[in-house]
Amino acid sequence: MSLASSSSAGTYELDRAHVLHSWSAQADVDPMVVERAEGVHVWDADGRCYLDFTSQLVNTNIGHQHPAVVQAVREQAEQLCTISPACATEPRSRAARLIAERTPEGLDKIFFTNGGAEAVENAVRMARSHTGRHKVLSRYRSYHGATTTAINLTGDPRRWPNEQSGAGTVHFFGPHPYRSPFHSRDESEECRRALEHLEQVIELEGPETVAALVLETVPGTAGIMPPPPGYLRGVRELCDRYGIVYIADEVMAGFGRTGAWFAVEHYGVTPDLIAFAKGVNSGYVPLGGVAVNEAIASTFDHRAYPGGLTYSGHPLACAAAVATITAMDEEGIVDNAATVGAEVLGPGLRELAERHPSIGDVRGLGVFWALELVTDRATKEPAAPYGGSGPVMKRLVAECAEAGLLIPTTYHRVHVVPPCTITAQQAREGLAVLDGALDTVDRTLAEQHG
Amino acid sequence: MSLASSSSAGTYELDRAHVLHSWSAQADVDPMVVERAEGVHVWDADGRCYLDFTSQLVNTNIGHQHPAVVQAVREQAEQLCTISPACATEPRSRAARLIAERTPEGLDKIFFTNGGAEAVENAVRMARSHTGRHKVLSRYRSYHGATTTAINLTGDPRRWPNEQSGAGTVHFFGPHPYRSPFHSRDESEECRRALEHLEQVIELEGPETVAALVLETVPGTAGIMPPPPGYLRGVRELCDRYGIVYIADEVMAGFGRTGAWFAVEHYGVTPDLIAFAKGVNSGYVPLGGVAVNEAIASTFDHRAYPGGLTYSGHPLACAAAVATITAMDEEGIVDNAATVGAEVLGPGLRELAERHPSIGDVRGLGVFWALELVTDRATKEPAAPYGGSGPVMKRLVAECAEAGLLIPTTYHRVHVVPPCTITAQQAREGLAVLDGALDTVDRTLAEQHG
Repeated sequence: MSLASSSSAGTYELDRAHVLHSWSAQADVDPMVVERAEGVHVWDADGRCYLDFTSQLVNTNIGHQHPAVVQAVREQAEQLCTISPACATEPRSRAARLIAERTPEGLDKIFFTNGGAEAVENAVRMARSHTGRHKVLSRYRSYHGATTTAINLTGDPRRWPNEQSGAGTVHFFGPHPYRSPFHSRDESEECRRALEHLEQVIELEGPETVAALVLETVPGTAGIMPPPPGYLRGVRELCDRYGIVYIADEVMAGFGRTGAWFAVEHYGVTPDLIAFAKGVNSGYVPLGGVAVNEAIASTFDHRAYPGGLTYSGHPLACAAAVATITAMDEEGIVDNAATVGAEVLGPGLRELAERHPSIGDVRGLGVFWALELVTDRATKEPAAPYGGSGPVMKRLVAECAEAGLLIPTTYHRVHVVPPCTITAQQAREGLAVLDGALDTVDRTLAEQHG
Repeated sequence: MSLASSSSAGTYELDRAHVLHSWSAQADVDPMVVERAEGVHVWDADGRCYLDFTSQLVNTNIGHQHPAVVQAVREQAEQLCTISPACATEPRSRAARLIAERTPEGLDKIFFTNGGAEAVENAVRMARSHTGRHKVLSRYRSYHGATTTAINLTGDPRRWPNEQSGAGTVHFFGPHPYRSPFHSRDESEECRRALEHLEQVIELEGPETVAALVLETVPGTAGIMPPPPGYLRGVRELCDRYGIVYIADEVMAGFGRTGAWFAVEHYGVTPDLIAFAKGVNSGYVPLGGVAVNEAIASTFDHRAYPGGLTYSGHPLACAAAVATITAMDEEGIVDNAATVGAEVLGPGLRELAERHPSIGDVRGLGVFWALELVTDRATKEPAAPYGGSGPVMKRLVAECAEAGLLIPTTYHRVHVVPPCTITAQQAREGLAVLDGALDTVDRTLAEQHG
C-alpha cells in the first residue's frame, strides 16, 4: 500500500468504504466532498460555491481559513505540536488568559478539553466534586454532547438510544413562549411560571441532592430560544438559594455567536462554570474547556481534581484559540455579529415571516436565528415531526443548495447560523435564496392542508 | 488587552493564574515550561535538554516534530482546517483507509473521535446498540479514559471519585503472573485460571446481559502487563460463545508501541472493535477513533448510529494521521520499536534487575516496559502504595531529571515508554541514567527496611 494508491481512489468512494458517519443510517449517507472553503463560502469537489448559513456545526464563527488563524496553526506546528498537559506552554497560558479576560468577573481558571461534550462532562465533575451531591438538572429541548453524562443531560431525541439509569440527570421545562409548557399568555408570564416550575422541581427532587443545573444560555440545536428577560437572573437566584452550581453551556452560544463574547452578558448573570468549545477557535483544531470560578477552583487546591485527558490544553489548539480571539477582537467580529443580527437577519427574517404563512415563529439574536415552520399558524402544527424530518424540509434544503446556500434544518425548524464575519450584503443574499425556497414550502403545505 | 501584554507576562505565571491542571491538587502543580522538542528530546525554558522516556502521555510514538507530519499539518492548515463531519474530505478518507489496512482483517470501517475516552465511549455505544444488552465487563488494573462510561470501565483509583451507579460496568481480574490473583505458579496456569474466572463472571452476571468486554491488549498505565500466551484467544472464544462484543482498547498499545501496528497481532486474535487514539498521529492534533467490523457496522446501515461529535474526522487531525502512518511505514518505525525492545530495552532492563534488588519484576515488549519496585523481593511489598506515590519514587524521578532523563512512574512502578523512533544508543543512554537512580532506590529501601 502506498500513498499514491490511496490518492488514486476517490475521496467519496474511500469515505463510503471506510468512514462510519455520526447520527446517521449509513445507507442514507451521501456526503458532499469538500476540498476548499474560505470566509463564508464552501466549494464542493465539482467547484460549486455555496454561501454557508450553517457555520458547519455552528462552529466556524470566524469563517473558514482566516489567514491569521491559519498562520498561527502553521507557526505553532513548526514550533511544538504536542506536549503533556503537565507541562506549561506559551499558547495554553495565553489562551487561558484571553478566555478568562472575556468570561464574566471571577471565572478566571480554565480547564481545557478536546470539545464541548468533554467540557460538559468536566463541568459536571467539578460541580459534583465541589458540592458532594450527585443529581444534575437540565432542560427539555437542549443538547449537551454525546459522551455518557452529556447525552443523558441532553433534552432531545438523541438521548433516547443512549439513556442510562443512574446518570443522575433530571429534566425540567424551560421557557418557550411560542409553545409554552406553562400556558402563558406572554413572555413575562412565561418567565415567572418557568421559574416557579424550576423551583418546584428543585424542592421536589430535594435541593441537597442537586449538584448542578446545566443550561444552554440560548438553547441551540434544540431551537435557538433566547430566554425571556429575567429568566436567567431567576435561575441564578435559585441556584444561590439552594447551593446549586450554575453551569452555563455556551459551547454553541459562546465566542461571538450571539453578538457577545458570552451570551450570559445579554442577561446580566454570572454562572459558576461556563462550558465552551466550537467558537473558541472556530474548530480549526479540536478544543473545548470549562471556565471555573474561584470557589470551585479552590476546591481543588489541596484535593486532586479527578479528571484529565491526554490533549488537555493542546498547543496547536490553544495557538488557534489565541489567534482566533485576537483576530475577533481586532476585526470587531463580535460586534459585526450583533450588527448583522440587529440590522439584517432579525428584520429580514421577520419580513419573510410577514410574507410566508409557513413561518410560525422567528427568534434569535446575533447570527443565531431560528424559524419554526408550521402547517397552520393557528394550530402551530410543525411542518415535520419532533425527532424526524419530512419531504418539505428536505426539499427546502435541496432548493437552497441548488441556489448556492447551505442551510441547516432540525425537525421542522430552519436555523440561520452563518459565521460571525458575514457581511450585510452576504446575509441579504442568503435571505433572498431562503425566500424563494419558502415559496415552495408555502405552496406545498397549502396544497397538503388546504 | 493586547497580545503584547499577554506575551510579556511569563508562561509559567499565566499558567498558574489561569490553568486548571488534570488529576492534580492545584497547590502542588509546578509545571516544567516547554518551548521546544524534537525527536526523542524535550527542552525546558532554561534550555535544558531531556531524553524523553515518557513519550509525553505515551503518545508521541513518532517522536516530536517529525518533519513530514509537521509539513502535512501545515499544508492541510492552508488547504482546509475544519469542516462538518457530514462532508467527505480527502484526509479523512485517506486516514480511514490507511487505518483499516492496518487493523486485523474485517475491521474496515472507522468512526473518528477526538481522543481515546470518546473512542471507548463510542465502542461501548456500538456494542450496546448492536447487542441490545447493557453491561460491559472490564478488568481491574486498567485505564480507559475519563468521560463517564470510560472512567467507570477503568480499573484504577481514578475511577473512585467518578463512580456512577447504573454505569453498567463490571470488573473482573485479568492475568497478572507477578501478583497472581489466582494463586498460580506459572504463566500457563495464570492464563487457564484467568479464563476460568472470566467465564464464571460472565455466567454469574448473565451472558444475555453482557454487551461487551473491553480489554487493553496490553494494559498500559495500570502496569504494562503483556497477557500470557493464549489468554486473548481464550477471551475471543468466550466472547464468541456468549455473543459478547470484544472491544480491544489499543489507545496506548496501538500504532507501533508494542512493535506492531496493533498489539493484537502478537496474540493472533481479531477483536470486533478496536479503540485507538494517541499513536494514530502521535497526538500532533487530537484524534481517536474506533475500527469496526462488518457485523457491527452493518447494524447501522438502516438504523441511525446514535452518536457523534463536531470534530469527527477533523481534516487537520486526519492529515496528521495520514502523514504519521505513512512515515512510520516508510521509515520502519514499528520495526524499530520491536528491535529496540528485543535487543536493548528488554535485555537492558533485565540486566538492571540482576543488579538492583529493588526491581521485583521486568515486563513489556517493543517500547512499552514496566519495572515493579519493591522493598523486598520475597514479599513483593511495593515501594509505594497503590494509588499513591512515595519519597523513593519522587526521588528517582528527580534524580533522572537532574541527569537529563524524563521517566514516568505510576505508584511503585517505573515505566519505560520512549518514542518508537528511539535508537539503540539513546535507549542505552536512558538506561544508564536509570541505573544510577536505582542505586539510590536500592540504598534508601535497604536503609528503611534493612
